[in-house]
Amino acid sequence: MEVKTDARNQFLDITPGINDFLAQAGVKEGICLVYVPHTTAGLTINEGADPDVAEDILAQLERMAPHNNGYRHAEGNSAAHIKSFLAGAQKTIPVTGGKLTLGTWQRVFFCEFDGPRKRKVIIKVLPG
Amino acid sequence: MEVKTDARNQFLDITPGINDFLAQAGVKEGICLVYVPHTTAGLTINEGADPDVAEDILAQLERMAPHNNGYRHAEGNSAAHIKSFLAGAQKTIPVTGGKLTLGTWQRVFFCEFDGPRKRKVIIKVLPG
Amino acid sequence: MEVKTDARNQFLDITPGINDFLAQAGVKEGICLVYVPHTTAGLTINEGADPDVAEDILAQLERMAPHNNGYRHAEGNSAAHIKSFLAGAQKTIPVTGGKLTLGTWQRVFFCEFDGPRKRKVIIKVLPG
Repeated sequence: MEVKTDARNQFLDITPGINDFLAQAGVKEGICLVYVPHTTAGLTINEGADPDVAEDILAQLERMAPHNNGYRHAEGNSAAHIKSFLAGAQKTIPVTGGKLTLGTWQRVFFCEFDGPRKRKVIIKVLPG
Repeated sequence: MEVKTDARNQFLDITPGINDFLAQAGVKEGICLVYVPHTTAGLTINEGADPDVAEDILAQLERMAPHNNGYRHAEGNSAAHIKSFLAGAQKTIPVTGGKLTLGTWQRVFFCEFDGPRKRKVIIKVLPG
Repeated sequence: MEVKTDARNQFLDITPGINDFLAQAGVKEGICLVYVPHTTAGLTINEGADPDVAEDILAQLERMAPHNNGYRHAEGNSAAHIKSFLAGAQKTIPVTGGKLTLGTWQRVFFCEFDGPRKRKVIIKVLPG
C-alpha cells in the first residue's frame, strides 16, 4: 500500500485502505499486522473524529523532540527518528467479521515525521 | 474483558485476567494479542513488584504531556490522547505452556489516562 | 537468544541473530514476534547506517526521563522503567522469503536502559 504525505509532520488516516486489503484477503477472524518500513515515520491508533487531536499530538511531539536540538546525525532529521522511536513502526490489530476491530473513536494513522514523501505500508493478516 | 478504573491516571494489572483467558482458550504455544479499543488509554508491560514504578512512570508522563498545555482539542483530554500515543493500544506477547511468557518482574498493565471509566480489553490468541 | 550490553544506555543491533533464527525455523512467509522479558530494556526498529542516530535518540530519551529526577522507586532505575515504557518490550515484523521484511535503513535494536547486563530476547515466528 502506498501513501503520499504533503507536510513534514502529518497524520494520515489509512483505515479505509487496510479494510480494503482485508476484504480482498477474505480473512474473517484473525490478526492484522500493519508495518511501516521507514525510520522517520510510524503508526498510531488514535482519535479520528476531531483533527485537532492529531494536531495536539504532533505539537507535543515537537516539544518532546524539537526539530533543531544540537543533534549529532548530520542529515538534519534526528527529531524524525526520535518521533519514529516513540510511535513505533508496527501495530497489530484484531480482525473480526473481516474488518479491523477498532473502538468507536479509533482510526489507524500513518505518522509522517520527515515529509513530504512517498511512503509504503505493509499489511499482513493471519487467520485465527 | 472489562476493566474499571477509579482515577484519571492509573495502571491496572490485568495479567491474571489474560492468563484466565488463555487457560479457557486452551492454546499451549503461540502468541497473544492484547488490544485496547480506546484512544485515551493504552497498555504497558512493566514492573509489578513495586507500585512506585507505576507512580514514577505516570508522574513523568504528566511532565511530558501536562494535562493543561494550551491544546486545541475542545474536550480537555488531549494529554490523554498523547499518553495513549506513547503507550500504544496493543501488545503482542509469546505464549508458552498455556501462559504469557513474561519476565520475572513483568506484568501487563492497562493504562488509564482519562478515568475513572469502564473500559474494554480485547484478547486474541493464535497458536503457533 | 542472549545479549550482553556494556553501558547503562545502549542500542545493540540484533537483526543478524533474528535472521539466523528465521533461517533455522524455516518459515518463509509469516510474522515474527521479537520480545524482551525485561522491564528496564526494550526494542526499537530504527536507522542502523549512522550510529549517531542511536546516540541522538538515547540523548533525547535522557532529557525526557533524566536518570535523577526525584523518583519514588528506591532502586534508582526509574528512568530505565520509563524509557522501557516508551520503547515497548515487543515488535512484530513481517517475514518474507524467510527473512525480516525491513526497510532499507531499518535494523532491529535491543535497547538497554539499565546496563551493563546479560539480557534475553525471545523470538517467535508464525507462518501465514
